[in-house]
Amino acid sequence: MEVIQSPQEMQTWSLTRRQAGYKIGLVPTMGFLHEGHLSLVRKAKDYCDRIVVSIFVNPIQFGEGEDFDRYPRDLSRDLDLLQKEGVDAVFAPTVAGMYPERTRTFVETEGLDHKLCGRSRPGHFRGVTTVVSKLFNICLPQVAVFGQKDAQQVMIIEKMVRDLNFPVQIIRGDIVREPDGLAMSSRNVYLSPEDRKKATILYRSLLMARDMIREGERNPQAVRNAMIEMINQANGAEIDYVEIYNGFDLSDIEEIKGQVLLALAVRFGSTRLIDNLLLEV
Amino acid sequence: MEVIQSPQEMQTWSLTRRQAGYKIGLVPTMGFLHEGHLSLVRKAKDYCDRIVVSIFVNPIQFGEGEDFDRYPRDLSRDLDLLQKEGVDAVFAPTVAGMYPERTRTFVETEGLDHKLCGRSRPGHFRGVTTVVSKLFNICLPQVAVFGQKDAQQVMIIEKMVRDLNFPVQIIRGDIVREPDGLAMSSRNVYLSPEDRKKATILYRSLLMARDMIREGERNPQAVRNAMIEMINQANGAEIDYVEIYNGFDLSDIEEIKGQVLLALAVRFGSTRLIDNLLLEV
Repeated sequence: MEVIQSPQEMQTWSLTRRQAGYKIGLVPTMGFLHEGHLSLVRKAKDYCDRIVVSIFVNPIQFGEGEDFDRYPRDLSRDLDLLQKEGVDAVFAPTVAGMYPERTRTFVETEGLDHKLCGRSRPGHFRGVTTVVSKLFNICLPQVAVFGQKDAQQVMIIEKMVRDLNFPVQIIRGDIVREPDGLAMSSRNVYLSPEDRKKATILYRSLLMARDMIREGERNPQAVRNAMIEMINQANGAEIDYVEIYNGFDLSDIEEIKGQVLLALAVRFGSTRLIDNLLLEV
Repeated sequence: MEVIQSPQEMQTWSLTRRQAGYKIGLVPTMGFLHEGHLSLVRKAKDYCDRIVVSIFVNPIQFGEGEDFDRYPRDLSRDLDLLQKEGVDAVFAPTVAGMYPERTRTFVETEGLDHKLCGRSRPGHFRGVTTVVSKLFNICLPQVAVFGQKDAQQVMIIEKMVRDLNFPVQIIRGDIVREPDGLAMSSRNVYLSPEDRKKATILYRSLLMARDMIREGERNPQAVRNAMIEMINQANGAEIDYVEIYNGFDLSDIEEIKGQVLLALAVRFGSTRLIDNLLLEV
């Protein structure tokens, strides 16, 4: 497994592999890897001959006062995990390597970015689409795998790829959960033991909503209210959003039918967790 | 020479050539080709084995009330000219082919885009950087050639390529001029015979400025004023801008030294012409 820091070397590495006829799969991450990330690596292997994992905590997708500085990092542990998965190259650039001069170019996908996480994190998705464009141009993958946990992110990236004609196929990886249902996240380590227990309410509220819908409820407002009520029973859970949208384009819906995204973001102390469920009704 | 309309076919064409080891050069144009464009094609041949010329009048870089509808077009004449130059493929998509769904993703290079043409054409360069990103992703060139006549455009594209790590080398092609000095432009056909004669004042004002600087003038304001005075002597010439900036980043300068860009845009009737001179002082 090669560990590459320089964007130029990474580009050369990928160009050489492509020239040799290999299909490259990219799994972009911010590191501090867990089973969720590793499942994306395994998924990439189903489609590709050579796997690149990028590890980069991207400053331009964090807002003022967000957790860029304290975002958990452990490169040597990450490298061990990726080595065991049989990854071919890890692209782990520095901030100065990715942004060597004052960057002035931004890629922005409008319309999908002002809802859900975009509302509480202005500029976040512009930072994501910009760095993913850079990673595509540097790692030159034919396939890139993104986790469904960041549902809005993968929808925005799919739209960006279509709009800008990136020659990259986007694959979604399923959410991986702890045994008690909590969606795996690098940020889970921030949780106090009590909040860690309380946080299971997020997935339970999604399952409860799924059951309501299965039993015939079609009013998004009714389902949403039941979820909010349930989450509020967890002492100290502070809801950022609980929303039900069209699962293709995040448009508002008046009736639950077709592909529907149930999505939520909730704070426990200073830790913000997200989760979602994509349903076909 | 192959004429390709579909972005997907174009991508496949380029991927196949790259896989075969060829180096692809792209010359992006809006068609209605003249010697200036053909000189860019010849320049591309100095660097590449396979030449792609794109012909696309890009609606999103034209503002309200600009000349998108009446921009001159003559595809069959363009194809004849390119055939004679030994071009390998012409990518001539339709607007619906390039923007098949409501496009929501834009690439924007800030800071360089609010001066010169960016000031009088808000949104213009966002349209340019977006479509050039698309063309890079579709035609997958290793080299792209842009004319120095659109000096601000090529500077913005060079910055975009650096910021987003596009694996594309940008080459600048010199301005090609008519025997009387007028910079070649597809828009020159709009000019009335009288205005066509008057328009030579643009290049003459640049040469006069160069002479002033050669003779020791270092005050940009003095040079600029002399150019404005000269251009205003041409009856009916309406100045959009006459500016002198740092030739690397378009920053303001108080003294003429180093690389300096003299740039102007002037209207004759409804026809807006641009010209420039890059000087090393």
